[in-house]
Amino acid sequence: MQRQKITINGERLKQSLEKFAAFGRTRNHGVTRLSLSREDIAARDYFVSCCEEIGMTVRIDDMANIYATMAGEEDRPPIVMGSHLDSVEKGGRFDGVLGVLAALEVSRTLYDQRMKPKIPFTIVDFTNEEGARFDPAMMCSGVITGMFDKAGILKSKDSKGTTFGEALAASGYEGDSRNRLTKASAYLEMHIEQGPILESESVQIGIVEGVVGMVNYEIEITGEADHAGTTPMGMREDALFAATDLIAELRRSLSRLDGGLVYTMGRMNVFPNIHTVIPDKVRFTLEARHKDPEVISQVVKVIQELPESMEGCTIETKKLWARDTVAFDPAICHQLEKSTQSLGYSYKKMYSGAGHDAQYMASMVPTAMIFVPSVRGKSHCEEELTSYEDCVKGVNVALDTLLAILSDH
Amino acid sequence: MQRQKITINGERLKQSLEKFAAFGRTRNHGVTRLSLSREDIAARDYFVSCCEEIGMTVRIDDMANIYATMAGEEDRPPIVMGSHLDSVEKGGRFDGVLGVLAALEVSRTLYDQRMKPKIPFTIVDFTNEEGARFDPAMMCSGVITGMFDKAGILKSKDSKGTTFGEALAASGYEGDSRNRLTKASAYLEMHIEQGPILESESVQIGIVEGVVGMVNYEIEITGEADHAGTTPMGMREDALFAATDLIAELRRSLSRLDGGLVYTMGRMNVFPNIHTVIPDKVRFTLEARHKDPEVISQVVKVIQELPESMEGCTIETKKLWARDTVAFDPAICHQLEKSTQSLGYSYKKMYSGAGHDAQYMASMVPTAMIFVPSVRGKSHCEEELTSYEDCVKGVNVALDTLLAILSDH
Repeated sequence: MQRQKITINGERLKQSLEKFAAFGRTRNHGVTRLSLSREDIAARDYFVSCCEEIGMTVRIDDMANIYATMAGEEDRPPIVMGSHLDSVEKGGRFDGVLGVLAALEVSRTLYDQRMKPKIPFTIVDFTNEEGARFDPAMMCSGVITGMFDKAGILKSKDSKGTTFGEALAASGYEGDSRNRLTKASAYLEMHIEQGPILESESVQIGIVEGVVGMVNYEIEITGEADHAGTTPMGMREDALFAATDLIAELRRSLSRLDGGLVYTMGRMNVFPNIHTVIPDKVRFTLEARHKDPEVISQVVKVIQELPESMEGCTIETKKLWARDTVAFDPAICHQLEKSTQSLGYSYKKMYSGAGHDAQYMASMVPTAMIFVPSVRGKSHCEEELTSYEDCVKGVNVALDTLLAILSDH
Repeated sequence: MQRQKITINGERLKQSLEKFAAFGRTRNHGVTRLSLSREDIAARDYFVSCCEEIGMTVRIDDMANIYATMAGEEDRPPIVMGSHLDSVEKGGRFDGVLGVLAALEVSRTLYDQRMKPKIPFTIVDFTNEEGARFDPAMMCSGVITGMFDKAGILKSKDSKGTTFGEALAASGYEGDSRNRLTKASAYLEMHIEQGPILESESVQIGIVEGVVGMVNYEIEITGEADHAGTTPMGMREDALFAATDLIAELRRSLSRLDGGLVYTMGRMNVFPNIHTVIPDKVRFTLEARHKDPEVISQVVKVIQELPESMEGCTIETKKLWARDTVAFDPAICHQLEKSTQSLGYSYKKMYSGAGHDAQYMASMVPTAMIFVPSVRGKSHCEEELTSYEDCVKGVNVALDTLLAILSDH
């Protein structure tokens, strides 16, 4: 069947993005819309009303995940598209919400065209993807896919001591566990790249084939806290000197591995952190990400082979956690590529360096993601920006891919 | 005149040290005796009673400095000995209090011997030397020698928001500004070394010829806070990588200067300090100490010649403060050497790397210090230890020096 070539309403998408940017708007045109906050609930309410306006049926599960479904000709597991409406503190106007509004724009386009899909089409808003208010990130896609235990998750506390369970009960969005998504024909998530690659290579669409695996270690160095004025250099066990030597050593070793490896010492604390006292302890994190598990194994080997002491200080390493690489569905990725080509957009196949709800969904449903460029690679900050033109292109790819999948069913 | 060879009562000195260790004793046999705290006031009360018991006249000045004076045959400016009774949080049993109790033991010995000194002998307890409760350190020796302005000092707040002025008024130790020490014939302070040199060289007495000068800088490195998972290594401006490179560079340059130079990066803070975010800011202190101002100038030159950027990050340096080297009185140092030799103790002439009330007194009075060994160089901690034998030796040197100075007057 030759599919009809339809495209979305770019102006309406732009208006939706602007409308939702008002929920939790910050002074510098970012948003603070922590999960289940007043701002998040206002965004949810409006989102639900938008879906109901075009005849979608809205259901809420016990984790406050929202599912808005457009009925299909056949009662089969839906094709699902979505992301999350929550943001980090002083985050951007695109991260998460773009994926939900992309799905809404796809629905509205189908509605405009009076196209009843062959199988149901569901938009999902996953609760607390960011993990900014309640740890962990990707919390509620994680619960419904069995990654996290609900009982433990309910006890997760925000900085004010409110548990997720309490916030859930107070939100008006605590639904029924029977509404959880358990089966779907496909899951497609559009998201900003949150990195600089697409922009720097002048590419319009990222076809995301998976999410890179990672390891996260904590490295602790212990020396002696002596007086900065009275202890000769040769008699010191300076944990900061050992730490800087160790970081230099780690960088040398890690830079010799695959060029696609990324590694970061993002958190570092020095003790006692007094200018007149030689540091006796430094603790820092080392996380490394790569799509190839073999490269991650090489990173682990580098860490395991670190010396036990440096500059008279002891070195201890502790694996905090690791996450395997998640590969997305090749068939959907292939369709994304075909749709992108047919629309005449430039594209790049890539892995996501950041985590997304899609990586948990992939354990349950054939899944893939579409990335659109992030200006200067910025995200989780008020400067986060993706041009509306790029957003429109991404949603057109999503729509075309959806129509292709529908026509295959 | 051939002086009579008298020595102190070592057992009594030990008992005094043990008695005072009870004021603010911590679980691990250290002390917490913050300035003008209940514990400090109890120690002061007991100290005053000990002085009065042997007929000394006690006066308190407006900064709560205590002066206990044994009258001399002639009414001339006194010879002063002392230190401070306050401690840091979980400090040791020797830092400061040893200098006060050394002076008390000298007084008691003179009293036992029924020796009326030719000129008055005064014991001083300086308020808030540690600066642990109220900033700055050496506060009240600083005020009476004109280093600090009293009005500003009175506003200094502790961590609970109490000002020094309020604590002073509540202490019962706010005396009269007319009681301030303004003239003295000599000032002698005995103190633990707080460093490892004497112990490591098996030397019993340190003859302190001065206090080293120092400079203290803050160095700030600014990069870009990008996503740790999505930003390729080549596109990063990682402030922590720049900081570790810079510290390595600083260490290389500083290690080429004089071997007696000490330098420390004691405080370092990383921002935003989140394991998944590339650090965009690192701020660290660099302090360096040396007795020779020329070496300190070379340190400043190293800092001034640092590159303006590294790893794509900008580097800014800011001088926080500096302190010139203070040289003590050569005549008193010479007498200390003679007394130490006559007592048959091993000794070493040295500069103090740490600050002491003596460095401010030196601007007003011929001054010197005696150091006794610190086990493992430890101070400002509960493990701080000096053997009683070494304490006794130090006080004997002080007594012999005092008698020599008296006999010269």
